[in-house]
Amino acid sequence: MAGKKVLIVYAHQEPRSFNGSLKDVAVAELSRQGCTVTVSDLYAMDFEPRATRKDITGGKMVPEYTVLYMNCALSSPEFFSYGVEAYEACKKRSLTSDIIAEQKKVQEADLVMFQFPLYWFSVPAVLKGWMDRVLCQGFAFDLPGFYDDGLLKGKLAILSLTTGGTADMYWKTGASGDFRYFLWPLQHGTLHFCGFKVLAPHISFAPEFASEEERRGMVASWAQRLKTIWKEEPIPCWPPWYFGQ
Amino acid sequence: MAGKKVLIVYAHQEPRSFNGSLKDVAVAELSRQGCTVTVSDLYAMDFEPRATRKDITGGKMVPEYTVLYMNCALSSPEFFSYGVEAYEACKKRSLTSDIIAEQKKVQEADLVMFQFPLYWFSVPAVLKGWMDRVLCQGFAFDLPGFYDDGLLKGKLAILSLTTGGTADMYWKTGASGDFRYFLWPLQHGTLHFCGFKVLAPHISFAPEFASEEERRGMVASWAQRLKTIWKEEPIPCWPPWYFGQ
Repeated sequence: MAGKKVLIVYAHQEPRSFNGSLKDVAVAELSRQGCTVTVSDLYAMDFEPRATRKDITGGKMVPEYTVLYMNCALSSPEFFSYGVEAYEACKKRSLTSDIIAEQKKVQEADLVMFQFPLYWFSVPAVLKGWMDRVLCQGFAFDLPGFYDDGLLKGKLAILSLTTGGTADMYWKTGASGDFRYFLWPLQHGTLHFCGFKVLAPHISFAPEFASEEERRGMVASWAQRLKTIWKEEPIPCWPPWYFGQ
Repeated sequence: MAGKKVLIVYAHQEPRSFNGSLKDVAVAELSRQGCTVTVSDLYAMDFEPRATRKDITGGKMVPEYTVLYMNCALSSPEFFSYGVEAYEACKKRSLTSDIIAEQKKVQEADLVMFQFPLYWFSVPAVLKGWMDRVLCQGFAFDLPGFYDDGLLKGKLAILSLTTGGTADMYWKTGASGDFRYFLWPLQHGTLHFCGFKVLAPHISFAPEFASEEERRGMVASWAQRLKTIWKEEPIPCWPPWYFGQ
């Protein structure tokens, strides 16, 4: 929809991969609609996944004494709690620049789209690190200020992911259980916690086992869905949608 | 139990943290029993979480042309698929040395223990990266060769984790749902997939909101449980344990 802003957080190593194609077709279709599309290509950016005291900056710039300097910028230099320090640094605007840059992109976006291959029923570590570091207290949530009151309320999020396993493994009676089960920590525990409304996930099952024609069909169906993405209603937030209770 | 080998994969930035205390007490108690205990202290090791082509080595050592050299070692240098390349490299023993070192520790262990704070209903990115990179096809599983037939069958695993949220948030009717829900991707999708039998998780809820005396009690109860850990039966693998169906 013209005027909307979309951030695509993309986690694949290979531009010519199937994930890369899904990202490319999303950029093309959303741009065609007049949206402003920004891509965070995490591997290309060599995005840092580890949450460490390096994320807390501030004080005088004395590069040769970086470690000492950073310790001095901490609220509790003797005892490092990442969550506490990141919250303080967020309020003081002294988080490291790569985190602030990503937060700015999220802040401006109407829709945040995550494009990734499923690694161990979850996101690849580089994307987990994006979540760990970017979605900090004070920016994405506060206490209180989570779930329906999360600080990113008013925004939409969607997961577009590929799997190694086939669709028949991801049913209630399949070896890997219903695919909704593994979505819970991501869609509820992370996105809903931050206040996002979540659109139905787009899962491309087992592209590695599909023919070239089937893969083209999967990319085309993603492009097709995106044509009417702005008319979609969010999915329910609560356990029955995930676990059928 | 005397003679048993334990690997503790530990993910906290601060040695004097509550997680650090839980790790320390586990090392002490298991050593007292005569176990051989190895700790992978992921932040202290600056463990690499990103799954990239740097993980695939081999060929002649020509350090100044590392990138070219690494491309030449890949099965498909024109199109990088991490899973495919890691599997090939695992078979050829040409994975990078930090992965091989961790695999050796896992291979030797009777019990693999994970000690971490819950980040976004899951493990911190540095530990997710350990899972993504160490538990590769050919080492931890194969196709076929997963779930009950996973290549690490015969081994035990246990999650010991701390939460930010209080216990009453992690019930079926709590805001964050039953804690078993978020365990599914880790215990089933990862550990069971690799063939591990999984012991009941040890969850220390909200130590940050506890008194110093309560925290000491939580550490003591972990030490107490470890005294009889070798007599425990694994938990059930399947959805009813997690979702009550």
